[in-house]
Amino acid sequence: MRIKIIIEYNGMTFFGWQKQDGVISVQETLEKAIAQVFNGKEKVELFGAGRTDTGVHALGQVAHFNIYTEVLVLRWQNEIGKLVKAINYYLINSEIIVLSAEVVSNDFHARFSARMRHYEYLIYNRKIQSVLMKDRAWHVPQKLDIQQMIKASRHFIGTHNLNSFRSARCNANNPVRTISMVNIQQYQEIIKISISSKSFLHNQVRIMVGTLKFIGENKMDPDEIKALLIEQDRTNAGPTAPPYGLYFKGVEY
Amino acid sequence: MRIKIIIEYNGMTFFGWQKQDGVISVQETLEKAIAQVFNGKEKVELFGAGRTDTGVHALGQVAHFNIYTEVLVLRWQNEIGKLVKAINYYLINSEIIVLSAEVVSNDFHARFSARMRHYEYLIYNRKIQSVLMKDRAWHVPQKLDIQQMIKASRHFIGTHNLNSFRSARCNANNPVRTISMVNIQQYQEIIKISISSKSFLHNQVRIMVGTLKFIGENKMDPDEIKALLIEQDRTNAGPTAPPYGLYFKGVEY
Repeated sequence: MRIKIIIEYNGMTFFGWQKQDGVISVQETLEKAIAQVFNGKEKVELFGAGRTDTGVHALGQVAHFNIYTEVLVLRWQNEIGKLVKAINYYLINSEIIVLSAEVVSNDFHARFSARMRHYEYLIYNRKIQSVLMKDRAWHVPQKLDIQQMIKASRHFIGTHNLNSFRSARCNANNPVRTISMVNIQQYQEIIKISISSKSFLHNQVRIMVGTLKFIGENKMDPDEIKALLIEQDRTNAGPTAPPYGLYFKGVEY
Repeated sequence: MRIKIIIEYNGMTFFGWQKQDGVISVQETLEKAIAQVFNGKEKVELFGAGRTDTGVHALGQVAHFNIYTEVLVLRWQNEIGKLVKAINYYLINSEIIVLSAEVVSNDFHARFSARMRHYEYLIYNRKIQSVLMKDRAWHVPQKLDIQQMIKASRHFIGTHNLNSFRSARCNANNPVRTISMVNIQQYQEIIKISISSKSFLHNQVRIMVGTLKFIGENKMDPDEIKALLIEQDRTNAGPTAPPYGLYFKGVEY
């Protein structure tokens, strides 16, 4: 039986999504909590929709796992509504919380079945840092020109080779991605940049945001995005925005 | 020379605004930081616009203090623009930050000159708690009926005896206050209640919010607010909402 879960977490309290030796990851923390629900009778292996980096938050990360042990399948298939509470009980000391759990068909895959991923990035744009938003948004002291950023953002829409907008450590073979939406909104001192795509390259959102911030500071012309998409040279794009402003918002299947 | 400062802080990291023996208050932390800027040459006494309780956050608390030492007056009156940075340097390990500092006339008083105080209260209204909003909003799992809450909120506008809406520990002689605005807005899962008044009684906003939440849960009729304002009996109002959803937004002078 395959279970799909939706998860929120504070990325500042984990060394990223992916399980690694010697550090605390979201994946491993969740796998252990779920295994505890099953009294250790099932070795839980979790597949996530996105491997968020250290510091990146999630409001709607999605993952799936299988239950093979027949007695557990029988027990939980009729009580799936109680699974969320049961897992969260073992997460009480972690900054992770499971928002929902449902039985899905065996051909559902959290990563490969995704049709659309949504990310949001928050910039806190005022002179002085905020203690309440410190770990939740990128503090940019210089007043950003939103209109220039919006103008620039339009160039991203569509299918492009995104070599200029991925980390040197990105191991995707194909750097071509289709960006479906880039939306920039301002709420008082907060600027929210929403980006949607079927899939993303490593650090893509953070490099896009870093470049948009450069444009908002008038260090780059909005139309230079076009050139960056053709040149395919990471060194000409803006800096990589810090992870703690980034939120993995949700996935559509 | 009198200085007015505007301050943001995370209320969860302090035992309230007011200085007390044996605990860490916002007031004392700030007084110490400012005294450090003056190399201990001035005994700094800070007067705040509002004595927020433990857990209550501030986005725009206001306070004033005097500089009597002539050499400090001469030094800082021409460099007031650098004072914010200087104070914040000594606050680096606290969840307080000074947003602005300006010289004001000697008849300005952060508390007594206030013409209007603005508070905001955040409710996180969904079934499951949020790890990212845990200490920033009141988690209410039952879906609230916003329309009923808005209907109820209108009864608060105007001048009333607010005995039903103040803590038993409130020591104000006069329980009559004029509420200028109660505004309720919803942003996805967040409900924001904004309340403005020249001054407030102890726990007034939190009891008003607790009562509005009761009404949103259909445990009380919106028109019962009218009766509560006449009865003047705290025991008939709703529970006191927790402090960490409350934000002292700002003060007008």
